[in-house]
Amino acid sequence: MMESSTCNSANLVSNIFAKDGGTSWKLRSYSSFYWKQSVKSSIRFEGIRASVAASPRTLESSKHGMQKAGEVVRVGVLGASGYTGSEIVRLLATHPYFKITLMTADRKAGQSLGSVFPHLITQDLPDMIAIKDADFSKVDAVFCCLPHGTTQEIIASLPTTLKVVDLSADFRLRDTTQYEEWYNQPHRAPDLQKEAIYGLTEILRENIRNARVVANPGCYPTSVQLPLIPLLEAGLIQTRNIIIDSKSGVSGAGRGAKEASLYTEIAEGINSYGITRHRHVPEIEQGLSDASKSKVTVSFTPHLMPMSRGMQSTIYVEMASGVNIEDLYQHLCSRYEDEEFVILLQKKAVPHTRNVRGSNYCFMNVFEDRIPGRAIIISVIDNLVKGASGQALQNLNLMMGYPENLGLLHQALFP
Amino acid sequence: MMESSTCNSANLVSNIFAKDGGTSWKLRSYSSFYWKQSVKSSIRFEGIRASVAASPRTLESSKHGMQKAGEVVRVGVLGASGYTGSEIVRLLATHPYFKITLMTADRKAGQSLGSVFPHLITQDLPDMIAIKDADFSKVDAVFCCLPHGTTQEIIASLPTTLKVVDLSADFRLRDTTQYEEWYNQPHRAPDLQKEAIYGLTEILRENIRNARVVANPGCYPTSVQLPLIPLLEAGLIQTRNIIIDSKSGVSGAGRGAKEASLYTEIAEGINSYGITRHRHVPEIEQGLSDASKSKVTVSFTPHLMPMSRGMQSTIYVEMASGVNIEDLYQHLCSRYEDEEFVILLQKKAVPHTRNVRGSNYCFMNVFEDRIPGRAIIISVIDNLVKGASGQALQNLNLMMGYPENLGLLHQALFP
Amino acid sequence: MMESSTCNSANLVSNIFAKDGGTSWKLRSYSSFYWKQSVKSSIRFEGIRASVAASPRTLESSKHGMQKAGEVVRVGVLGASGYTGSEIVRLLATHPYFKITLMTADRKAGQSLGSVFPHLITQDLPDMIAIKDADFSKVDAVFCCLPHGTTQEIIASLPTTLKVVDLSADFRLRDTTQYEEWYNQPHRAPDLQKEAIYGLTEILRENIRNARVVANPGCYPTSVQLPLIPLLEAGLIQTRNIIIDSKSGVSGAGRGAKEASLYTEIAEGINSYGITRHRHVPEIEQGLSDASKSKVTVSFTPHLMPMSRGMQSTIYVEMASGVNIEDLYQHLCSRYEDEEFVILLQKKAVPHTRNVRGSNYCFMNVFEDRIPGRAIIISVIDNLVKGASGQALQNLNLMMGYPENLGLLHQALFP
Amino acid sequence: MMESSTCNSANLVSNIFAKDGGTSWKLRSYSSFYWKQSVKSSIRFEGIRASVAASPRTLESSKHGMQKAGEVVRVGVLGASGYTGSEIVRLLATHPYFKITLMTADRKAGQSLGSVFPHLITQDLPDMIAIKDADFSKVDAVFCCLPHGTTQEIIASLPTTLKVVDLSADFRLRDTTQYEEWYNQPHRAPDLQKEAIYGLTEILRENIRNARVVANPGCYPTSVQLPLIPLLEAGLIQTRNIIIDSKSGVSGAGRGAKEASLYTEIAEGINSYGITRHRHVPEIEQGLSDASKSKVTVSFTPHLMPMSRGMQSTIYVEMASGVNIEDLYQHLCSRYEDEEFVILLQKKAVPHTRNVRGSNYCFMNVFEDRIPGRAIIISVIDNLVKGASGQALQNLNLMMGYPENLGLLHQALFP
Repeated sequence: MMESSTCNSANLVSNIFAKDGGTSWKLRSYSSFYWKQSVKSSIRFEGIRASVAASPRTLESSKHGMQKAGEVVRVGVLGASGYTGSEIVRLLATHPYFKITLMTADRKAGQSLGSVFPHLITQDLPDMIAIKDADFSKVDAVFCCLPHGTTQEIIASLPTTLKVVDLSADFRLRDTTQYEEWYNQPHRAPDLQKEAIYGLTEILRENIRNARVVANPGCYPTSVQLPLIPLLEAGLIQTRNIIIDSKSGVSGAGRGAKEASLYTEIAEGINSYGITRHRHVPEIEQGLSDASKSKVTVSFTPHLMPMSRGMQSTIYVEMASGVNIEDLYQHLCSRYEDEEFVILLQKKAVPHTRNVRGSNYCFMNVFEDRIPGRAIIISVIDNLVKGASGQALQNLNLMMGYPENLGLLHQALFP
Repeated sequence: MMESSTCNSANLVSNIFAKDGGTSWKLRSYSSFYWKQSVKSSIRFEGIRASVAASPRTLESSKHGMQKAGEVVRVGVLGASGYTGSEIVRLLATHPYFKITLMTADRKAGQSLGSVFPHLITQDLPDMIAIKDADFSKVDAVFCCLPHGTTQEIIASLPTTLKVVDLSADFRLRDTTQYEEWYNQPHRAPDLQKEAIYGLTEILRENIRNARVVANPGCYPTSVQLPLIPLLEAGLIQTRNIIIDSKSGVSGAGRGAKEASLYTEIAEGINSYGITRHRHVPEIEQGLSDASKSKVTVSFTPHLMPMSRGMQSTIYVEMASGVNIEDLYQHLCSRYEDEEFVILLQKKAVPHTRNVRGSNYCFMNVFEDRIPGRAIIISVIDNLVKGASGQALQNLNLMMGYPENLGLLHQALFP
Repeated sequence: MMESSTCNSANLVSNIFAKDGGTSWKLRSYSSFYWKQSVKSSIRFEGIRASVAASPRTLESSKHGMQKAGEVVRVGVLGASGYTGSEIVRLLATHPYFKITLMTADRKAGQSLGSVFPHLITQDLPDMIAIKDADFSKVDAVFCCLPHGTTQEIIASLPTTLKVVDLSADFRLRDTTQYEEWYNQPHRAPDLQKEAIYGLTEILRENIRNARVVANPGCYPTSVQLPLIPLLEAGLIQTRNIIIDSKSGVSGAGRGAKEASLYTEIAEGINSYGITRHRHVPEIEQGLSDASKSKVTVSFTPHLMPMSRGMQSTIYVEMASGVNIEDLYQHLCSRYEDEEFVILLQKKAVPHTRNVRGSNYCFMNVFEDRIPGRAIIISVIDNLVKGASGQALQNLNLMMGYPENLGLLHQALFP
Repeated sequence: MMESSTCNSANLVSNIFAKDGGTSWKLRSYSSFYWKQSVKSSIRFEGIRASVAASPRTLESSKHGMQKAGEVVRVGVLGASGYTGSEIVRLLATHPYFKITLMTADRKAGQSLGSVFPHLITQDLPDMIAIKDADFSKVDAVFCCLPHGTTQEIIASLPTTLKVVDLSADFRLRDTTQYEEWYNQPHRAPDLQKEAIYGLTEILRENIRNARVVANPGCYPTSVQLPLIPLLEAGLIQTRNIIIDSKSGVSGAGRGAKEASLYTEIAEGINSYGITRHRHVPEIEQGLSDASKSKVTVSFTPHLMPMSRGMQSTIYVEMASGVNIEDLYQHLCSRYEDEEFVILLQKKAVPHTRNVRGSNYCFMNVFEDRIPGRAIIISVIDNLVKGASGQALQNLNLMMGYPENLGLLHQALFP
C-alpha cells in the first residue's frame, strides 16, 4: 500500500486491523449501513451507534425532549430563501431522519422553495410561509438562517422545547458589549446569549451535544480556529503576531442583489475588503483567547475571490520557543486523527479549496516558513458547508443524538 | 399549495394522496429508509423494494450471477484516474451496496486515488493497479472508463460473469461500419457489439435490466435523445431540419493536458468546435432514426463553455402538421411523469444547467417558436453525471436488481 | 509567406503589392488608408490626416457644424456611470481628438468617474453632474448611454447643433408602433425618429456620415446583421427559417444590482432567456427585412453565459437554390475585404469570442451544414465594443469626419 | 471638484496649475513629459514629438546607437508564441514608432502569429521563424521571451549593437551562485550578467535608460518591490518578518499544456503553491536587501487564482519604531506622485486587480493593521503587463529615448 495520503488514515488503518483482525471488508460492511464513507466512519459508527442505541445515559441526559433514535425529527428552516437555507435543504435530501416540515421566508411567503431555488424542485417540501404564521408546535428543531439583528428576538420567542441552530452572528459573541460594538446595535436577548453554545463541533462537541441553542460559527472563524485552537491550547505557537490572510468565495455575501456581488464585478479579479474591520474578527479573537487563556489580537484580512464557494485561510504564525514544524504537525495529527471532517493532509500536501467544494470537510496542513521560527498554516473549507449549513447539520445531528455525519456524506464536487 | 413547479410533481402528488389516503408523511417515511428524495421515489421505492425483496422472478431472470438483494456488489473501476472514473467514486460514496474493490490506471499504477484526486482522500479504496494485474475473479461488475479504441479488446477479454458498463464510445454504434467511419479504426469486438445494450436508461430500461454489457451513452446524445425520442416516436415533430445547438462544460474534454483546455484558453469566452464532425453525431442519428423508424440527419453544433460541468442542448424543430406546443408538452409530461431523473419543468420555466450541477437529473422544457409551426426544446444535464458516470451507475443499479437511484440522491450543488 | 489567416488580409496584401510594387513595409504604410495595425499612429496619423484633409468633399457635405479636421471635439457622455458609459471613456483614452468635457449621471452627480469606476482614475475627466445641470453649449457631440424610455425626450431637447450617438434602443425601430408594442410605452419623439439613422456602420456608412442623430445598434442585432444582410441582399440565403442561437456575456445586463446577475447565479452555468420575446427581435427583423425586401420573421434565442464580455451568434440558415457554401464565403469576402473591423476568417477557422474581447472587431465565418442545403454562420463580437460603445465611437468618428478607427486600435485582450 | 481619488492626481493637479497658471488643458500638455491620460494622443503626440525631437541631450546621452527620435525602431520578438510574446505584439499595436520585423518561435517556425494567436490576425507581422534563421542585422532591439536556461547563451550570442529586454529569469540575479542554487543549473553568461541592468523601471530608471541589456523583473517581484523598496530605503518599515501573501492569475504559468493549468483544475478554487520555494524569492530578497542595505529574508507564499490575469500582493510588515501609517502613506505619495504607472490610491481605497487588467498600472495602498505597530500594504498589477511585457516595453521606450508610455496608454479592461 502506498504511503497514506493523510495523517488520519494512516493511523486509522492500523486501528482497524487491530480491531477486526484483518477480516474482509465484507464483514465490516455488515456492521453498519453506513460503512461506506471511509474506514474512520465505519469504526466510529459502531461507537456512535452504540451511543445512540445503547447509551440511554446520553439520551436521558439531554433535557430537551430528545427524539427516540431512529425516529423522524421534524425540522423547520427559518429564512429558507437564502443560500444557507437552500444548502440545509440540499444536505437534508440525503438525511435519513430529518424531515423538513416548516419553511419560512417573509418576502417569499406562499411560494414553493423550488420556485426560488429550481435546483431543489424535486424535493418534497412545504411551501414557505411568513414566520408570524409558523406553527412551532409541529417542529422539533429549527435551523435559523435569518439576518443578524432580528434573529435574537425571534429565537427568544420560540418554544423552549425546540432545539435551535442559529446560523446568524447573533449569539456568537459571549460578551454582548462586543456584539454591540461590532454590530452597532444593542443585544436583544442577553439571557439567551448565556445559554447559547458556540457550535464549533470538533472543539466543543460535548457542550453542543447537550445544548438547546447553538450559535453556529462564522465561515472565517471556522477555517481559522480549527487549526489554531489546538496549537494555542498546547502552547505550540505564539499568541502575538498571528496574521490571517483569508480568501472566500462570493456566496458568503448571500443572495442579496448588490452591485459589488455582480458577476461582472467579481469575475477575473481579486480584492481585499473589510481590512481590520470584518465582523468575524471578535469571533476569532474570542476563540483564540479562550484557547490560549490570554487576550489575542489578530491581523485578519479577508479577500473576495472569483468563485462561488470555498474558503482558504493562510495563517502566518511564530512558533513557541524550541518548537518546530514537526511538533505542530504531530499535535494536529493526534488532535484530529479520530475526526471524520477535519483532515490533516500528508506532509507537504497543499490543501485546495476545490477539494472540499460541496462537502463538510476541513483540509489543513502546516509548512515551515523561510523565516526561521515561523510556520505557515493553511486550512480550506466550503464556506456554505463546514462554514455554515454543514456544520449546522453536524451540530443538530449531535444535539438530537444521531451520528454527526448523517446527511454529510457527500464527497466534494470536483471538477 | 402553490402551483406545482414541475409537470411531474403535480401528477405525483395526486397519485400519492390517492394511494395512501392522505396520511401523514410520517407513515410514508416508515415504509422506506429512502423516503427522503421526493414523493416520487418514496412511492416508486415501494415498487422497487418490492421488486428487489419480493420478486425473485426478476432476480432469477437475470442470467449473470445477480447478487442477492442487499448483498454487497464488488465493483471495479477501469481507468480510474480520469474524470469519469473519479465521478464514479464520488457517487459510490453514498451508495449502500456497491463497494469498490478494484481500480486500474496503467500510468498511475501503485498510486492511491487520493494522490491524484485529493477530493476523494477520505474514501477507503484499493490502490490503483495496472489493468494487466487485475484479478477479475474478485469483482462482480466493472465500470469501464477507458479511452475509446482500446476498450473493445479489454471488455472482450473480461470474464463473462461480470456485468459491464462501458463509458467509452466503443459499443454505442450498432453498425460497426459507422464506428469505423467516425473513429478511423476497425471495430475489434464486433460480436460483443451485438450483445451490448445502449444504456439510455429511461428509454431502454427493460433491455438494460437484463443486459450484461451496457454501452453508456455520450453526454450530448443523452441531452438530445431524452426529449426528442418520445416526440419522434409519437410523430409529433418532423424528422427533417432538426437543429441542435449544444453547449458543454470543459470537463467533457477530460483531464488530459491540452492547450485548448487551459484555463487561460477557456475562461471568459465561448467557441463552437467540431462543427458537423463531432463523433456524437452518428450516435444521435442512430437513436433518432430508431425512434422515427426513418433515417434522420441532424445539424449538430457543439460549443465549449467556460464552465467545468453542465450541458445544454437547445433544439430547434418543426412540429408535425396540426401539432402544437401543448401537444409536445403533454406528451413529454405523460412520458416522464413517473421518472425520477427526467423532469419536465412547469410551463415557461427555463432549465438552467446550474440547477442540475452534480446531480443525475435532466431538466427539460418546450417553447413555442416565433416562426409558426416551430418549437424550441431545451434540455440540461450535468455532462459528468447524467451524461456519464451517473447514468452508468443508474444502469448498474438496474442491472444488479437495485433501485435505480441508489447513490444518486445528491441534489444539485448550487450556487 | 504562410497562407493568409483571413480572407481580408489575403486580398489586402495583394492590393498593397499591386499598389506599391512590393516595396518595403515603410513605403506600404504611406500608401494606404488601411495601414491597419502596422505602421502605428504617428506615421499612420500623418496618412490619416492627409486623407481626411484631402477629401474636403466629405467634410463639406456634412451639414452639422463639422469640426475642422485635427481640431479637438468636445464630447459629452450622458449616463456615464454604467458600463457603456465607462467603455466610451476607456476607448477615448487613446483617441487623439475627442475630449470628454461633460459627463452626466443623475444618481452619481457630484462624484468623479474614478470613484465609481476606479479603473479609470488616471483619466482627466470632469466630475459627473445631473443632466439638468449640463451646459450643452460646451460640447460638440454626445454619446447618450441612458436607459430606454427617457432617452427620447432628452435627445429631442438637445441643441440641434450637437451630433448625437444614442446607445439606447429608443430610436432603433423606424416603425414607432413596433417600438410601442415591444417596449410597452408610447414613442415620445416620433419626429426625431424620422431623422435618426440606424448606426450599423459597415452597412449604412454613407447615411451615418451625414447624420446628426444615430441610433446605435443593439449588440445581438450587430452580431446577426453583419453576416446576414449581405447574404440576404444578394439572395444567397432563404428568408425563411433563419434560426439564431446567440450567447452573450453578462455585461449586457448592465451594472444594475439584480439577483439574476450575481456572480453566484451566473458562474459555471448557462441558460436561455427571453425566448422569442427578446426586445432585439424587431430590430433584427427590421434589418433583415430591409435587406431582403420582404418581411422576415426569425427564431431568436439568446443565452446568458458565464463571461463578462463577448457575444457569439450561431446562425442556421437555408441556402438559396443552387447556392453552395463557397458562394457564401466569397460573397462575404468581397463584401468585407476592405473593412477594418469586420473580418471573415480563413476557411474552416472558427471564431472565438475571446479573440475579439475588448476590441471593435467582428470575426465571422461560414460552414457547410451536415443537412444538405443548409449553412451555419458564426459571428463574434465584444458586446460592449462593437456591440455598443466601440461602434458608437466608430460612428462618431465618421460623423465628425475622422478616420473610423481612431480610438479603436486596441487589439483583443487575450488571455 | 470632488476629493481627488488618488494621491497622485491631487498633487499633480496642483502641480499643473502651479506650472501653467490654470490655462487650458492644451497648454498643460506641453508642460509635462507626463501628460498622463488627459490630453489625448494627438495633442499629446505633438507634445511628445516636440519633447522628443527637442531634447537631443537625452538621445545623445545614450551610448548604444539610439534611433533618431521619431524614426521607426525595428523590433524582434524572440519566443513569440507564448503569452508574453503575444502581449508584446498586442501592446505594440498602438505604439507609434516600434515595428516588429522579426519573430522567432522554434516549434512554430513557418507559421503566422495569427495562426497561434487569432486575436492578433489583423496585425501586419512577419511569419515566425526558427531563431537560428534570424537575421539580427535587420533589427534594432529585441524582446526576449524565451524560457530560462537557454536564454543566457542566446542573448550572449546577439550582436552587441542590439538593445535587449529579457523577460526570462536568466539575468535577474546578480549573484550567479544564487541563480545556480534556485535554478539548478550553471549560469552560462556570467560576464553578460555583470552588464545586465535590473529593469524595475520606477526604481532604476536612470540605469535602464543607458542599459543595453535589461533583465525584466518577475511579476511577483514587481508587485512586491514597488511598494516596499521606497519604505525600506527610508527606514520606515522593519526588515524582519516581512510576510508576503501573493495571489496570481493563471497566465503566469504560460501556455504550456499542464494538467495543473486546465480550466477544470483551476476554476472555482484557490490554492497556495511553491510555499517558501518559489523562484521569485531570491529576486525579491535581492531587491529588498539592496534597498535596506542589509540581508532581508522574506516569507513569500504565492496563490493560484481562478483568473487569467492579475496579481495582488498583500504584504504584512512591522513599522519602524515611532513610524505610523500616515508616514508610510506620505512617503509613498511623494515617491510616486510624478509616476504615470504607479498610483497610490486615495486613503482607505482598496486596490482591485480588475482595475488594472490589461494595463501597465500598479495600484497600491497602505492600511493600519489591527495589531499595533503593523501595517498592511496592498499592490495590484496585471502580471502580463506591468508584471512582464508592459514593463518590458516601458523599459525599451526608455532605452530608445522615447516617452515611457508609448504603447501603454490602454486603460484597464473592465468589466
